Amino acid sequence: MKVKNITFIGMGLINSSLARAIKRNNFADKLVATSKSSKTRDRVKELCLVDHVVETYEESVKDADLIVIGIPVAAYRDVFIKIKPYIKKNAIITDVGSVKKSIIEDIKNLIPKDVNFIPGHPIAGTENSGPDAGFADLFEGGWCILTPDKQTSKKELEIVKNMWKSVGMNVDIMSAEYHDMVLAITSHIPHIIAYSIVGTVANLEERLKQEVTKYAASGFKDFTRIAASDPIMWRDILLQNKSSILDMLELFKKDLSSLEQAIKREDSLFLEKLFTKTRAIRKEITSKI
Amino acid sequence: MKVKNITFIGMGLINSSLARAIKRNNFADKLVATSKSSKTRDRVKELCLVDHVVETYEESVKDADLIVIGIPVAAYRDVFIKIKPYIKKNAIITDVGSVKKSIIEDIKNLIPKDVNFIPGHPIAGTENSGPDAGFADLFEGGWCILTPDKQTSKKELEIVKNMWKSVGMNVDIMSAEYHDMVLAITSHIPHIIAYSIVGTVANLEERLKQEVTKYAASGFKDFTRIAASDPIMWRDILLQNKSSILDMLELFKKDLSSLEQAIKREDSLFLEKLFTKTRAIRKEITSKI
Repeated sequence: MKVKNITFIGMGLINSSLARAIKRNNFADKLVATSKSSKTRDRVKELCLVDHVVETYEESVKDADLIVIGIPVAAYRDVFIKIKPYIKKNAIITDVGSVKKSIIEDIKNLIPKDVNFIPGHPIAGTENSGPDAGFADLFEGGWCILTPDKQTSKKELEIVKNMWKSVGMNVDIMSAEYHDMVLAITSHIPHIIAYSIVGTVANLEERLKQEVTKYAASGFKDFTRIAASDPIMWRDILLQNKSSILDMLELFKKDLSSLEQAIKREDSLFLEKLFTKTRAIRKEITSKI
Repeated sequence: MKVKNITFIGMGLINSSLARAIKRNNFADKLVATSKSSKTRDRVKELCLVDHVVETYEESVKDADLIVIGIPVAAYRDVFIKIKPYIKKNAIITDVGSVKKSIIEDIKNLIPKDVNFIPGHPIAGTENSGPDAGFADLFEGGWCILTPDKQTSKKELEIVKNMWKSVGMNVDIMSAEYHDMVLAITSHIPHIIAYSIVGTVANLEERLKQEVTKYAASGFKDFTRIAASDPIMWRDILLQNKSSILDMLELFKKDLSSLEQAIKREDSLFLEKLFTKTRAIRKEITSKI
């Protein structure tokens, strides 16, 4: 099962990787892309990532059977206002945004009655961004979460599922709320922490900062990789998933405080028990890969 | 310049890697090793990592010109008490411990007058431990910090420097206090944070824990790698570098709290500025590699 016309709105890391993968596997007959930035549009043309690069959102969607939104989550509303009158009847819209509940709230009144919106989130990425950073194998072996609502028809859901399967992903279905909580823990909180500690280092006096960057071995170096992620994208993700994030951050701060107290009172047993428990979690994760 | 007899006390990841590298580059004529654990001693024999494996600390040091201590920092005092009467006149002792100030305090009265103790810390490692985890190239291109005191003679310092250079490391000299502060930031705090957040996940209810380990992508997955480090070693490091760690943790908690407040009040500009600053730190680090 494949689609005729697929349109990519936004051509950053994820959508440009998806376009590359779909061009390779022929899941769609015709690939169209657009981007707000003329620099990105020019680059997508140079890289021959799709069949047609168009200038406006409106033009990009008019023939599309499947539309993949890959833009900053804060920009959804404006784009949906623009494309609403031009979307074909029975078209499917999906997206790749890292937050689900707030964007569904933002745009639910902008989806025409005869159009299906099936929110999605492929769990994939690198710390790089832009169309040059994409590559066709990005999704291989990963998980994509879809958060359809009760109105979503099975047939349309299958098409979006198949798109992600065609590029090598496993697909899981859950509610938008549950997605946002799971992602707060697996991705958003680690980013907040990494941004925070790398920010602490950025504020150190110059000599100490020099030493820290020089001796950044395992540990801090991993944090800097995470904290090099796209600033605008992450600003938006954190603001859009605010409530799940603040809940989980409370939990983390409580646990960090217990660990700090254990170090203060030199509680060897507490430390040893915790560090043994965390090692087991690593084993569970690596056994799943 | 090479040494005649080198002795490794403890044969974990670092010392077993060092033994492999020195066996390959002939920096020493004869390699001797010991370990508290008979299992480790047997394994070192099977792997042919040194010329002689001996059973006791005392026996291991009696002919040594250079002794490399590679044991948990909490065990130094007991070992130095045992070896003190057997160390050769003019021998050099160095170590590979991740903390410097507290171990120097612990053992300074146990160093014979005619013996040189030159504390060291090769910034190298993986999350694995034990003699099987070691490999000769572990140190290639990394930095080793030495923290000699004012009494250290230049000639002896050169020998320890040369050992680390012979296995591919750059060598830097600084005070034990400064070392402990730099390492608190680059390594100890990141480990505390990773242990803490992975511990938070370990305490989640079972279904959510399953989802989190399933979708652990960039972010949490990196944290679990750090939090899989040897529990006993890290328990000891954190307790031994308690004061630098608690200082830096205060700083981190303050910064994390500012970031949390910025998310609460939806301060886009604060987030964008911070996330752009942290990206620059990553560039500094990768440009140094």
